[in-house]
Amino acid sequence: MQQPTSGIPKRILMGPGPSNVHPRVLEAMARPTIGHLDPAFIDVMEEIKSLLRYVFRTENEVTFPVSGPGSAGMEMALVNVVEPGDKVIVCRNGVFGGRMLDIVERCGGKPVLVDEEWGRPVDPGKLEDTLKAHSDAAVVAFVHAETSTGALSDAQTLAGIAHRYGCLVVADTVTSLGGVPVHIDDWGIDVSYSGSQKCLSCPPGLSPITFNERAVEKIRHRKTRVQSWFLDLNLVISYWGKAARRTYHHTAPVNAMFGLREALLLIKEEGLENAWRRHRVNHLALCAGLEAMGLQLAVAPEHRIPSLNPVRIPEGVDDSRVRSRLLEEFNLEIGAGLGAMAGKIWRIGLMGYSSSRENVLYCLEALETVLAAEGAPVRKGEARKAAESIWNRDQG
Amino acid sequence: MQQPTSGIPKRILMGPGPSNVHPRVLEAMARPTIGHLDPAFIDVMEEIKSLLRYVFRTENEVTFPVSGPGSAGMEMALVNVVEPGDKVIVCRNGVFGGRMLDIVERCGGKPVLVDEEWGRPVDPGKLEDTLKAHSDAAVVAFVHAETSTGALSDAQTLAGIAHRYGCLVVADTVTSLGGVPVHIDDWGIDVSYSGSQKCLSCPPGLSPITFNERAVEKIRHRKTRVQSWFLDLNLVISYWGKAARRTYHHTAPVNAMFGLREALLLIKEEGLENAWRRHRVNHLALCAGLEAMGLQLAVAPEHRIPSLNPVRIPEGVDDSRVRSRLLEEFNLEIGAGLGAMAGKIWRIGLMGYSSSRENVLYCLEALETVLAAEGAPVRKGEARKAAESIWNRDQG
Repeated sequence: MQQPTSGIPKRILMGPGPSNVHPRVLEAMARPTIGHLDPAFIDVMEEIKSLLRYVFRTENEVTFPVSGPGSAGMEMALVNVVEPGDKVIVCRNGVFGGRMLDIVERCGGKPVLVDEEWGRPVDPGKLEDTLKAHSDAAVVAFVHAETSTGALSDAQTLAGIAHRYGCLVVADTVTSLGGVPVHIDDWGIDVSYSGSQKCLSCPPGLSPITFNERAVEKIRHRKTRVQSWFLDLNLVISYWGKAARRTYHHTAPVNAMFGLREALLLIKEEGLENAWRRHRVNHLALCAGLEAMGLQLAVAPEHRIPSLNPVRIPEGVDDSRVRSRLLEEFNLEIGAGLGAMAGKIWRIGLMGYSSSRENVLYCLEALETVLAAEGAPVRKGEARKAAESIWNRDQG
Repeated sequence: MQQPTSGIPKRILMGPGPSNVHPRVLEAMARPTIGHLDPAFIDVMEEIKSLLRYVFRTENEVTFPVSGPGSAGMEMALVNVVEPGDKVIVCRNGVFGGRMLDIVERCGGKPVLVDEEWGRPVDPGKLEDTLKAHSDAAVVAFVHAETSTGALSDAQTLAGIAHRYGCLVVADTVTSLGGVPVHIDDWGIDVSYSGSQKCLSCPPGLSPITFNERAVEKIRHRKTRVQSWFLDLNLVISYWGKAARRTYHHTAPVNAMFGLREALLLIKEEGLENAWRRHRVNHLALCAGLEAMGLQLAVAPEHRIPSLNPVRIPEGVDDSRVRSRLLEEFNLEIGAGLGAMAGKIWRIGLMGYSSSRENVLYCLEALETVLAAEGAPVRKGEARKAAESIWNRDQG
């Protein structure tokens, strides 16, 4: 293929997303555009809805991709479910819980915070205490896998508590969907949104979302209009709902949808459980390698996200210089810390197509080389063996 | 290239958008994804901003693509510029003026309508009368090229009137940008948004937008927060503003941006005035052909949009049957009527890469064939000659 955007380097993407995209997905994106109302596009839409139900583990009829990135999905979830005056319990253990809080305020909700130290999961006990004190709460919102810290919360337990207090549950699965077990129906999550560019390994720009009947009923019976026209589920559903009754709402990003379909087909071909398992074992191998090198993970083992590994930056090491060298000398992108974690951690993603044995070894090697060159006290030659012992054990 | 999304037909797109996409743009979309914070992506962003200034004919610093389709751009323009309580004059001569009204209501503006018959441009006299009666108005919003009817309004005159009454001007240039003269600075338009999938001939999903200093000042000094986190210019600008100070807001759709850059480069290579001229002459040829066939255009000649041609559906002809036959037998998409125009008109787009001599002739031939087969009273064998006489005159 010709390379019209010459000058764009080829990167190994091991940051917090986007992840690397499978060539089949890139090829699908390059198919000639067709109309968003073309009957042939209905088939694509229906297939995407069905495949999203597969990865979300849900039977929810209302499951589709928002025509915008994950933060548009977050806003869509909250502006529809939250009515002005609704009390909303927002669990905040990182940047994205804070973003939920911001959106809840902007749409007139009355937020009550359940705060947690960054790097730790949301505490179910604190949630329960808060719900006891706020029995009029209508919604509980939390982030399943906090991309800013690398901490995984127990979504099932949190959702169970929220339901005992009669709340609707909104869960952010941006960094977990496709890479970490997510069971929307079994866990009783009422609304969840994700992003295309993490463990689904599609280019960024789409946000898969799902609403169960309970959530749809609340939205259908709102007393006030949803404040966003673009994100009003009652309007969007006229386009993404039943194929036979489909009408125009906005112009869907057709080529991005071709890509998403292909990315979801790849997950289906691998098998979702196999994808989870691959993420898990590569994560364990990376962690073993990092620790063998002398680095520390910033989250306790039982709360780690298999798709995102937060590493403490060794004292005296220049954060941005190391990341620049990895990028320039190894074409390897790892993530900086975000918000309160800036300068304290690196975030090494192993998401979707990026979660491979080759990438784990490449990253360990690159990091070891650069850290040694920067004078950091790393143990050399241990990381690879430690990682391989994990894969060998996994096969044994 | 492999065709992973087999089953997707190849269409000639002559509806109201998306238009056909140049192979170079499709190839650019298929380049391996890089990070949205990668230094190499800054260059892409800066180039896109510069190229958008070229097509918008503006020096506005704040010019970038919204990470969502045109309707997200409309919402971004309005929710930023309109504060709760602001009186907003909304000119409505079609579906998209109506959508502006809806968004203004949702963000707490106090709308005052300047209504016009569908198929006619906005009446400057009516706007002036309305402004006289509402001297406290803060914003005037109108659609330059109404995609639902095919009527082109006189944006320069409307903007001039609005400014005489101290209003900010928001102009929708979704269907005009790149195909019809648009002069943001010379006409004094304060805010304008467009869509990637019309005369820019990029796949749908992005909305180029521009704010001048006056608009940015109003937004900077708002008393209330913008109701949308995702579309809050004060936040988005931290990502799309000065390259040196760029920080994370949301994850931009990287591959879509590769495509947009390539699409804009194609316009630059052709020359914007040449693109306008191409749109104009192909539009005249199509109209001549349609009229020679015995069909009627639904908008008076002086108010027609060169990129979108509304044709009255001949009496007794089955609207959807004709469009289905064009799609199935000729792989040709034309647009249905929208809203009040449903069943009354077809909308034949000649947008961007779709605006070519070959497409005009192909469409005339296909329409003549299908209409004749459907028993409509079309004059046969005249359309091609009529169209060619326009091109010959243009070359003469």
